[in-house]
Amino acid sequence: MPTPLRDAPFGVDYLQRRLLEEFPLVKHIGIEVESAHDGGVILRAPFEPNSNFKGTAFGGSLFCVAVLAGWAWVTRDLEARGLGADALIQESTIRYLAPLQRELRARLRSPPRAEAEKFRKMLGRAGRGRIRLHVDILDGRAHATEFDGIFAAIAR
Amino acid sequence: MPTPLRDAPFGVDYLQRRLLEEFPLVKHIGIEVESAHDGGVILRAPFEPNSNFKGTAFGGSLFCVAVLAGWAWVTRDLEARGLGADALIQESTIRYLAPLQRELRARLRSPPRAEAEKFRKMLGRAGRGRIRLHVDILDGRAHATEFDGIFAAIAR
Repeated sequence: MPTPLRDAPFGVDYLQRRLLEEFPLVKHIGIEVESAHDGGVILRAPFEPNSNFKGTAFGGSLFCVAVLAGWAWVTRDLEARGLGADALIQESTIRYLAPLQRELRARLRSPPRAEAEKFRKMLGRAGRGRIRLHVDILDGRAHATEFDGIFAAIAR
Repeated sequence: MPTPLRDAPFGVDYLQRRLLEEFPLVKHIGIEVESAHDGGVILRAPFEPNSNFKGTAFGGSLFCVAVLAGWAWVTRDLEARGLGADALIQESTIRYLAPLQRELRARLRSPPRAEAEKFRKMLGRAGRGRIRLHVDILDGRAHATEFDGIFAAIAR
């Protein structure tokens, strides 16, 4: 009998619950999953708790929203395929291109299919896969922040 | 007459107050300034609010503690010299070397004097200076996380 988790759609509600359960800081940042599907993941967070005294978004909060978008993408990818593994960040680079004065909205577009398949194959063969994910924090159509992270999945 | 701020020692209490006043998220992370002097800055944060479900420190919190150590160093450096400028992060790289299962403790050792002087000179001449700062998150004597950031100071 498949577990209930495997029957779930692994979409917005699923990721919202996992984020709140697994990271105490998520409720203070106010992360909301806007969308989650094969094409990618979008997370949002309200401006005020993530601002600084100068009235722009705090760089640490921008990092958190971006890294959690990556975590959510990997977690969804693993769970939707019934792969028992945990997602974690290994290294990342973040560039703050312009100050943001509104809601933090992080968009992760799924990587090319070949890279995602290689990642799952590595995980299956070695118990450990790695994948590079890119996240943009949007300011309307412009990019306020760009994040690149290497995420690992480690078999439980 | 010098302003009261210029008479303050710009040490632990000063930075603690600025951090709490300027970043709403700081109280949720639980940042505490352990030390702040010419040799560097050490910030701490308790484990529990910054943990994840796997019982290790959340990568986003590790980033926040590190980036705030850099912000604190720049802010102290500016205020202690009466330079009216704001500190902000421009870009950074973070490497998670090993999972951390205890208090988050970020240590920033002051950069070489010549670099700090160049930074202040740029700020004085152009109204904008940049400096690269390195922060280690310690696990006892080992390094759990390494952070490199380029910080800017922008004259008010």
